[in-house]
Amino acid sequence: MHRTYSPDSPTTRQSQRKIIVETVSAPTNIAVIKYWGKKDAKLNTPINSSASITLDQNDLRAVTSAAASPDFPCDRLFLNDIEEDLSSNKRFAAVITNMRRLAQDKTDSITGITVKKADWSSWRVHIVSKNTFPTAAGLASSAAGYAALTRVLAELFNAQEEYPGQFTGIARQGSGSASRSLFGGFVEWNAGEKADGTDSIAIQVADEHHWPEIRALILVVSDAKKGTSSTAGMGTSVETSELLRHRAANIVPGRLAAIKTAFLEKDFATFGKITMQESNQFHATCLDTYPPIFYLNDVSRTIIRMVHAYNEFKGEVLAAYTFDAGPNAVIYTTDAHLVELTALMKNYFDAPMNNEQAAEAAKAFTVNPALFAVCDPIHDPTVVQPVKYMYSTSSGPGARPMAASESLIDRSSGMPLLAMPPPPGAAPQK
Amino acid sequence: MHRTYSPDSPTTRQSQRKIIVETVSAPTNIAVIKYWGKKDAKLNTPINSSASITLDQNDLRAVTSAAASPDFPCDRLFLNDIEEDLSSNKRFAAVITNMRRLAQDKTDSITGITVKKADWSSWRVHIVSKNTFPTAAGLASSAAGYAALTRVLAELFNAQEEYPGQFTGIARQGSGSASRSLFGGFVEWNAGEKADGTDSIAIQVADEHHWPEIRALILVVSDAKKGTSSTAGMGTSVETSELLRHRAANIVPGRLAAIKTAFLEKDFATFGKITMQESNQFHATCLDTYPPIFYLNDVSRTIIRMVHAYNEFKGEVLAAYTFDAGPNAVIYTTDAHLVELTALMKNYFDAPMNNEQAAEAAKAFTVNPALFAVCDPIHDPTVVQPVKYMYSTSSGPGARPMAASESLIDRSSGMPLLAMPPPPGAAPQK
Repeated sequence: MHRTYSPDSPTTRQSQRKIIVETVSAPTNIAVIKYWGKKDAKLNTPINSSASITLDQNDLRAVTSAAASPDFPCDRLFLNDIEEDLSSNKRFAAVITNMRRLAQDKTDSITGITVKKADWSSWRVHIVSKNTFPTAAGLASSAAGYAALTRVLAELFNAQEEYPGQFTGIARQGSGSASRSLFGGFVEWNAGEKADGTDSIAIQVADEHHWPEIRALILVVSDAKKGTSSTAGMGTSVETSELLRHRAANIVPGRLAAIKTAFLEKDFATFGKITMQESNQFHATCLDTYPPIFYLNDVSRTIIRMVHAYNEFKGEVLAAYTFDAGPNAVIYTTDAHLVELTALMKNYFDAPMNNEQAAEAAKAFTVNPALFAVCDPIHDPTVVQPVKYMYSTSSGPGARPMAASESLIDRSSGMPLLAMPPPPGAAPQK
Repeated sequence: MHRTYSPDSPTTRQSQRKIIVETVSAPTNIAVIKYWGKKDAKLNTPINSSASITLDQNDLRAVTSAAASPDFPCDRLFLNDIEEDLSSNKRFAAVITNMRRLAQDKTDSITGITVKKADWSSWRVHIVSKNTFPTAAGLASSAAGYAALTRVLAELFNAQEEYPGQFTGIARQGSGSASRSLFGGFVEWNAGEKADGTDSIAIQVADEHHWPEIRALILVVSDAKKGTSSTAGMGTSVETSELLRHRAANIVPGRLAAIKTAFLEKDFATFGKITMQESNQFHATCLDTYPPIFYLNDVSRTIIRMVHAYNEFKGEVLAAYTFDAGPNAVIYTTDAHLVELTALMKNYFDAPMNNEQAAEAAKAFTVNPALFAVCDPIHDPTVVQPVKYMYSTSSGPGARPMAASESLIDRSSGMPLLAMPPPPGAAPQK
């Protein structure tokens, strides 16, 4: 839905405006215990608890600026340079409403402008958000986006939680997995038991410094928007897959406890095995859905088989794939094996990388020819499409404020800094 | 394992030999309630009951001849023109041993040769078997093969069952699904409960005349031998997939009862939906196996989505796919929709057909352009490989004797009629 930006009331002189702006950055996270299925669609609570690793924001992040002013006529939202209709985006609106409710007195550190708690109801917000990675291609872009939204509104409104984890519960109402992106490291999202969803919140199990050797190699198999949205897919799965119901009730609790212990003990073999089993079981429940949902393709399957071949060759689980609602692979490993694994994958799926140093190191690495010999038969170049892009990254912190210089919003107009509308009389943009 | 045929003892004049020969033909069957997982590997009993439709032998069959003679020095087996080592094939040997145990007095109708029950232990057999379809590519070739073996030995030995279904139990020890190919129409294989496996037998639910409108369109996606054999795959699945154990115990019984009723009432909508759900759940349990097993590929997935698009377009379930342990699709439908469905599939997956008349009818059929419009986006020609072959077929009878003229064995020598060894002194064959 593309619109050009309509300037606000021309009678308001911008210099007189009271505008405050905050900017935050939020990471994506990649689940190792998968969330698939809502218990309550309105509250966005899940049928099972889940857990994830928060990825480094240097590589994959959403940046969101929020401006507030009593002069803005309405709340507005700009996602990746396109204005979105807030009235048709209930999830965005829910986060804004819930965060506004927690607003306190605020004095802006830059302008000195003060907003009293009681006045927030008459201040409208402009939200401008950008992702540094493909949106809706199964890399949890909504997790980063809603975590950034929640956190930027907490800064803007000087919002205070009424109980610990309340912000994560609000982020959850935007996107379930967003609850986990407020924290860094290894994060659990408790399904919760209360009918009002207030205990369905995220908790940090260990921060990003606990196991600093953890690495993630991401293979972007497709940057196209996925065929079945997570929300639609989950709805059908909960309705039709008996295997999903069994899994949520009987299998996930044991796996979650085991993988938390494995992460805390830095036991990669257990951590990796559960991660792979979880990915496969999630996609199994998608296949058990009626009609079936497919996110993995022949490229994904080739990667899966290659990771198993790698582990078998090494005699232990040193790498673990996981796939969300799309064909893109995230391979968790540790720093000791990252270069070899990258070199192996680049041999079959060469693609541009986010990190020049990692690409060079992989290029210089000599993979054991016997490892190629076991992987060659798995890779059928007549079937397997190239990979679009590779990210080499690690775990990192949760959503965090950024300097004013990083703002996506023009402080004087309250409008997006980039992709401004053309000046009056200019030729229409193509 | 290729060998040339060594002639038997040259001192025995063939004209003096006592040789009797029988020939049978057996169909394949395609399960609608899937068998995946053994309860007892030695007895070859399953963790759940299953059900299938027996396909017409005109299109897909195994033909097996068996010769017996007191002059043969040992049991020998020739599969698709290649001699196999019986001592390393325990499943074949088990069927021969168990059928020989049920042998009775026999008078051969052609030669008049009589064998007394007590004499069978000194008669050895030669088995010659051929399939008319790709072996081990997920089209249940072993079902046809072991059903043919069991039935031809019943004829050869004039074997008598000690209890109803005993022959199906013996065929089961060759290959589980073979138990169902002894009968035509719609057949159930009861898992059974007894420790000795004697109640793990097949039962005909309805013969091939009960619902004569049932059709099957088979798309041979690959004729290559499958990557993971069924036996190996089932073993890993039973060990590692919790979803498989849940399915076998809690989901299959209800589905089996419902699909039997649907078949008896000729309720295609219910029959088709359960068939598709079963196929998907079976492949879901393969994916839930550790390491995961993949039989479906991107072509299979395209076919699945196209069948759902077809049903949605038609407003009811008129076609139902099912996939065994390979990427090949079997689409069940009824005669009223077969031509349209064939025309639709041939548009995207054109391939040679077994039936010239069916191919011509499909070519002449005008598919609604609106149906193409919903199917076109599903078919990505850059990803999807061509289909190798199409079979248009129906349901048919079980294993049955054939005329002596169909024999694969030379009555005077007891050796295979085709692929005979070259005469002494001839140039070696390439």
